[in-house]
Amino acid sequence: MNIEGKNQVIEAIKNNVTINKIIIDKNFATRKDDVISLARKNKLKIEFLPKKLMDTKSVTGHHQGYIAETVEFEYSSVEEILEVAKTSENPPFVVLLDGIEDPHNLGAIIRTCECAGVHGIVIPKMRACGVNETVVRTSAGAISHMKIARVTNLKEAIDTLKDNGLWIYACEIGGEEIYSQNLTGPIGLVVGSEGNGIKQSLRTYCDGLVTLPLKGSVNSLNASVSAGIAIYEILRQRESAK
Amino acid sequence: MNIEGKNQVIEAIKNNVTINKIIIDKNFATRKDDVISLARKNKLKIEFLPKKLMDTKSVTGHHQGYIAETVEFEYSSVEEILEVAKTSENPPFVVLLDGIEDPHNLGAIIRTCECAGVHGIVIPKMRACGVNETVVRTSAGAISHMKIARVTNLKEAIDTLKDNGLWIYACEIGGEEIYSQNLTGPIGLVVGSEGNGIKQSLRTYCDGLVTLPLKGSVNSLNASVSAGIAIYEILRQRESAK
Repeated sequence: MNIEGKNQVIEAIKNNVTINKIIIDKNFATRKDDVISLARKNKLKIEFLPKKLMDTKSVTGHHQGYIAETVEFEYSSVEEILEVAKTSENPPFVVLLDGIEDPHNLGAIIRTCECAGVHGIVIPKMRACGVNETVVRTSAGAISHMKIARVTNLKEAIDTLKDNGLWIYACEIGGEEIYSQNLTGPIGLVVGSEGNGIKQSLRTYCDGLVTLPLKGSVNSLNASVSAGIAIYEILRQRESAK
Repeated sequence: MNIEGKNQVIEAIKNNVTINKIIIDKNFATRKDDVISLARKNKLKIEFLPKKLMDTKSVTGHHQGYIAETVEFEYSSVEEILEVAKTSENPPFVVLLDGIEDPHNLGAIIRTCECAGVHGIVIPKMRACGVNETVVRTSAGAISHMKIARVTNLKEAIDTLKDNGLWIYACEIGGEEIYSQNLTGPIGLVVGSEGNGIKQSLRTYCDGLVTLPLKGSVNSLNASVSAGIAIYEILRQRESAK
């Protein structure tokens, strides 16, 4: 898989992502360059190529002269996410995505999760976007810090989380307003897909619903925006409870 | 300008957007169809065309068989936004965007503003995305409900808002955490661009900074996500103060 863009490549190196080689615009070879010095310090293989040739290798079309060729993204297991949570000073906080299809939304949600201190993300294998080059780019480097489990069955993942003491909330319309609920304990937050929200069978499998207020005529927010608002409300409550 | 997609066209009709004609996939002509009945009820001109021909007319590539040809988007003035705010039961709430360039972000922010009861949005004429087809589509119909002023100079717009009693906050890193500030009064929230945040000269022109906590390694959120979190925090405070 390619990691493309200056900041993205720097984040990948800093986080010990397994990189086969780094391709850099040959015009940068003779100038002072953060990526080159960082790559040399980490003894990574560098290849200098003309920009035009890099364009043909680029998947996102936004490489800025920097492409890291990595091994495929390594997914984690739900158990590994729970291990990360155990070493944290905060109660477990996991986000489950029920069928996000747009890689820009997935990338933005991964970025939000990393910024809010979420311990891991669970996504389904079927009918959902996996981690691809666009997701990596949109996540702005967050992907290198975030454990993501890709599971066959979200309900089984929820069972594992429930067994470990997490309360599972679906972020959906029709429930009690998120601001009036106590969300400071161990929590799994389920976020629905762009078009269809959360599947009915999964919603009823959750312990509760949290709902964002809607004061206008449009009846839903963008998927990554509503995820962001809900995730940050949980962070706000946890911080103010300290 | 085109408005494309089923829900988008329905919202446009319901909100009395001036429509020249509505183009509909001719395969839909003989079936029961919400858009056709709504268009007939509103005495709008309908043209049925083959899907392939509609594809060539589509700007977004996602028309779903429905394209409304409208007159250009009509911007409002800052004064008109303040008029809307005066008729509202809530204190004025205006969002100013300092150079959002991605139409998906602009569309998502317009959608968030509509959902949160914001009275209007101010955008600059230069070096920023205006309202185009992609913005209309991404806003999911919200554009038809939202006053947007497009101004030459954001500082002048801020002056007008200040003269009308609004406090202007810049949403940026480096300020006091948003959760510890009282944001229940008349407010203008300035949101920065994707890459560069808010221009230094504009930031110092604001009355205060509100900052979202960042608990991870990545040092910023997606522009439409951070706008969404800040806008909803203001809504949360206002609702809980009631």
